[in-house]
Amino acid sequence: MPDLSYIDVFFSVQAFQEEELRGKTAVIIDVLRASSSITTAISNGAKKIIPVADMSDAMKIANTMDQKDFLLCGEKNGSKIEGYHLGNSPAEYTPEVVKGKTLIFNTTNGTKAIKKASLANQIYVGTFLNQQSILNALKEHDDEIVLVCSGWQGRLSIEDTLFAGSIVHNISGGNLPDSAKDGAKVAFGLFEKFGDDLEGAISKSDHAKRLAELVPNGDIPLCCKVNEFDVLPGMKDGILTNLNG
Amino acid sequence: MPDLSYIDVFFSVQAFQEEELRGKTAVIIDVLRASSSITTAISNGAKKIIPVADMSDAMKIANTMDQKDFLLCGEKNGSKIEGYHLGNSPAEYTPEVVKGKTLIFNTTNGTKAIKKASLANQIYVGTFLNQQSILNALKEHDDEIVLVCSGWQGRLSIEDTLFAGSIVHNISGGNLPDSAKDGAKVAFGLFEKFGDDLEGAISKSDHAKRLAELVPNGDIPLCCKVNEFDVLPGMKDGILTNLNG
Repeated sequence: MPDLSYIDVFFSVQAFQEEELRGKTAVIIDVLRASSSITTAISNGAKKIIPVADMSDAMKIANTMDQKDFLLCGEKNGSKIEGYHLGNSPAEYTPEVVKGKTLIFNTTNGTKAIKKASLANQIYVGTFLNQQSILNALKEHDDEIVLVCSGWQGRLSIEDTLFAGSIVHNISGGNLPDSAKDGAKVAFGLFEKFGDDLEGAISKSDHAKRLAELVPNGDIPLCCKVNEFDVLPGMKDGILTNLNG
Repeated sequence: MPDLSYIDVFFSVQAFQEEELRGKTAVIIDVLRASSSITTAISNGAKKIIPVADMSDAMKIANTMDQKDFLLCGEKNGSKIEGYHLGNSPAEYTPEVVKGKTLIFNTTNGTKAIKKASLANQIYVGTFLNQQSILNALKEHDDEIVLVCSGWQGRLSIEDTLFAGSIVHNISGGNLPDSAKDGAKVAFGLFEKFGDDLEGAISKSDHAKRLAELVPNGDIPLCCKVNEFDVLPGMKDGILTNLNG
């Protein structure tokens, strides 16, 4: 079980320098919606997911592969990218569509956070859908853990902060020691306030309001399901696969 | 009284772009310790405070003034700057020292936040010491308000977030509407968790731990006193004076 004083929370992609993650364990969080789509895709049989930081990287990788093997996936400012096979709604990532495929994944905040965490010793992708898998994995760590919220344009997002808070709350058994870091305390405080009604809180978040016109109605309830899948998306050599497999 | 959906919180100097403050009302918060020192100095009779972003700017301004009129004040990484008259402990800013003087003020995070907020329509400097003055001022605003926490190296600080939370808590009467922004909700949640024991929470903060060797023992209790002074440090033409005067 990790020491609570070793757990920190970064609240946006912009709130840390790459060097600050060197040698640590990082959980990348983008509840609406990259973490939820990646977790769903892996649970539904996607073979591997290659996160990229932009469209140009996505095309370079796609050009090395056979057309039948990969899907171009992701969004820019909430909408599916023109010419891509899939957007960023977890509902799109059904077994029929993703089974056995390599997903090249490109989103506004989530995959940027994954790329920026490249100096971490271990990267997991976490969200409410695979919360218990993340908790099980973190229990095996006694190194420094950073919960990396993707946020939005340098700002924090309530949905990512709530998930970080739920992790801190669970690991601490609801009893946060004084030695916990500021970031852990802030996320914990938010979870105590709003954790009883995740879907209510997240559906009234800035992100949900911003994306109301763009995101399918069912996405928020889908992203708020706790422990729906037991997969652990984890990074090795730049590729995310299921480390619970 | 401002609309709660018009109040946002930025959690560090790095978490916003200058343009995001254009035309808004900004409250700059650096509880440990720039906001507390500035508020104390103004309450104790400092004539005006010129916040600067670095030592070079401080010297340029000092060179235009008569030696008896100004004091060079501030810190770098928590310690008084060599050759400066005063550091960043509010205890140094006594009436005997500051009365009638112009203070040229230079700190690691606090004055950087003030400078970066230059596009705001109105800038106040706030902390627990002058909480009621800030609340009274904000009640007169119906424009967009941003509570700008200084944080530390792009990270949030619990003490700044708690003060932002106390403002949101007071304005909302302890009842935050769903329409409030994510930043307001996060600060509010933290204040609900730790607001009953500000000094306890702040003395166990990352900042207090970092500065334990550098900051005088009495600074944290001093910075946690609520409504000690009724001054309202506010910016006009690059200079902070008491707008309650």
